[in-house]
Amino acid sequence: MQQGCKKKVTIKDIAREAGISPAAVSLILNNKPCRILEEKKQLVREIAKRENYVVNQAAKSLATRKSHMLALILPDIENMFFSSLAKQIENRCRKEGYSLIIASSDDRWENDEKLLRVLESRGVDGIFLIMSLEAMEHGERLLEELSLLTMPYVMIDRTLLDAGCAKVSFDHGQGGYLATQYLLEQGHTKIGCVYRDDKQGSGKSRLDGYLRALAQYGVPVNEDYLKKGDYRMESGYLAAQALLATDCTAVFLCNDMMTLGFLRRLYEEGKWVPQDYSIVSYDDSLKNYLLGTKLTTVVQDIEALAGEACRLLFGRLRGEGGESQILLPPRLKVRGSVKKNAAERGMG
Amino acid sequence: MQQGCKKKVTIKDIAREAGISPAAVSLILNNKPCRILEEKKQLVREIAKRENYVVNQAAKSLATRKSHMLALILPDIENMFFSSLAKQIENRCRKEGYSLIIASSDDRWENDEKLLRVLESRGVDGIFLIMSLEAMEHGERLLEELSLLTMPYVMIDRTLLDAGCAKVSFDHGQGGYLATQYLLEQGHTKIGCVYRDDKQGSGKSRLDGYLRALAQYGVPVNEDYLKKGDYRMESGYLAAQALLATDCTAVFLCNDMMTLGFLRRLYEEGKWVPQDYSIVSYDDSLKNYLLGTKLTTVVQDIEALAGEACRLLFGRLRGEGGESQILLPPRLKVRGSVKKNAAERGMG
Repeated sequence: MQQGCKKKVTIKDIAREAGISPAAVSLILNNKPCRILEEKKQLVREIAKRENYVVNQAAKSLATRKSHMLALILPDIENMFFSSLAKQIENRCRKEGYSLIIASSDDRWENDEKLLRVLESRGVDGIFLIMSLEAMEHGERLLEELSLLTMPYVMIDRTLLDAGCAKVSFDHGQGGYLATQYLLEQGHTKIGCVYRDDKQGSGKSRLDGYLRALAQYGVPVNEDYLKKGDYRMESGYLAAQALLATDCTAVFLCNDMMTLGFLRRLYEEGKWVPQDYSIVSYDDSLKNYLLGTKLTTVVQDIEALAGEACRLLFGRLRGEGGESQILLPPRLKVRGSVKKNAAERGMG
Repeated sequence: MQQGCKKKVTIKDIAREAGISPAAVSLILNNKPCRILEEKKQLVREIAKRENYVVNQAAKSLATRKSHMLALILPDIENMFFSSLAKQIENRCRKEGYSLIIASSDDRWENDEKLLRVLESRGVDGIFLIMSLEAMEHGERLLEELSLLTMPYVMIDRTLLDAGCAKVSFDHGQGGYLATQYLLEQGHTKIGCVYRDDKQGSGKSRLDGYLRALAQYGVPVNEDYLKKGDYRMESGYLAAQALLATDCTAVFLCNDMMTLGFLRRLYEEGKWVPQDYSIVSYDDSLKNYLLGTKLTTVVQDIEALAGEACRLLFGRLRGEGGESQILLPPRLKVRGSVKKNAAERGMG
């Protein structure tokens, strides 16, 4: 029946051996109702099992348009925030009976485009999309690309304000505000900010939150305290270098990787957080790693993000519409206290 | 021509509008030779572009058996070793013209099996497989499952000795030996080991390396110094608790996550590495995170692992055979020195 030990057995092969039509075999193996004796059904299943027959999902999906496979496009698999989110989404998909495949864009717009096309052509049932920063800079082209998708999708974390699609993200402006408000309440007035300079992204929103808090507390903005970074460690290290040369007493860093670099520079000066310097960071991805450092940070609940994204996409796969734009609130996690130092240095 | 703005255009739709046969449209869009006027070809391409027609890869792959998509099955997307490896493999696939999709087994054997079947049925061209620990415990069943695959695959990192397939991994026995030898050379004789107790995996091999080094230096094994862990932080913390109650002066920890837990417990006692305690860890994934701690560690070159895995799979996709079992040597990265303390405590 087989021409070689690695040759795939077909539905026709099974039909020939069982002495029934290929159509009948297909009905039996796909558990569809059919008027065939139970013994014959049993025989077909045994042959299929013996021959390790795999129902051809590619062929099947062409007919039924269901692959029970969802895809997640993310910018960087090595970034802990995204890999944790991927794991949370994957767990939820598995419970719902879907396989999840993950593909990374390497934060490049051309890869986003390519992956959207490839995954659509392979017949995935739906897509979770965390787009590249580059794509966010090309908002209109992205919206056009997305409007052509024939399957449901949900934008996660990095969303476009004017995209009329299902999307879920954190309120980054609120995060920047909470971080800065905390430092102000501790008595600091000379507060640095290390931010990412993007036009329409979390960087701009977090900086806006910082500026809003300063304004509300009547503290003027000092351009010397504002340092650009790129969410990588090296840029945090360089920002520390620059800010240590000013008289600022505290700093809000817009992500944890930059904070790592900042801490390394402080450590070289023999300074520890929070005893010698006040920091508020963002992400809370470092809590298992820092010994001797108590880091106050803005926390984004990744489980909630994954949960809402899945709720939206699963709903759309069932044909539901409903609420589609979700903004999750970040919260502040205080570790250690900086009040005393703040009073000494910031007010002195 | 379209019934709704989200309805996919088919080859028949394009054929109708262009006034030629669907077969001719297919030849044109797949860049196959055909006797059709250049103007007509141009028209077909314009319609396809205007209608955002995507060549149906699922249908196409059924005919051509090429999807230009490779898959990577890994045990845990959140584990930094695997996510770094995934990124390295992904970069190499992209350069070679392949899309890479990643799927996680959550370290469960049933998911390995399911993913192998799903990915094969979706027509991926080849598979990179880092199997679950559970699967390694069921070596024979796994080998049977793998022998039925109809596409090339490469086993990475966790391999079975008797699998006659393409595989690449690190020499874990050598890693355990190097770590222990270093501590012995620093003057320690009371050396703990925190290891994972598996039958056929890196845990057993690393422990074997530790035992081999002790034997070679004529140091008897003390069962009190051997602590089981599960490669997670909590188990390292508990091991520290237990080993601090013994007189051992140094410890070899078989992975970085356990080391994190161990360091946390030491820190609670006011002890720092390497000043107050001697540790050799494994993986070198912590180098960016540890402030005030100099950690000597066994390093596995992830780039080399990804490079060899890709070389093997790309070769097989081109129909090449050749060398198929690669064992990469780990190396020791020394940070800080523990010699003085060792002499004081271990010999005292």
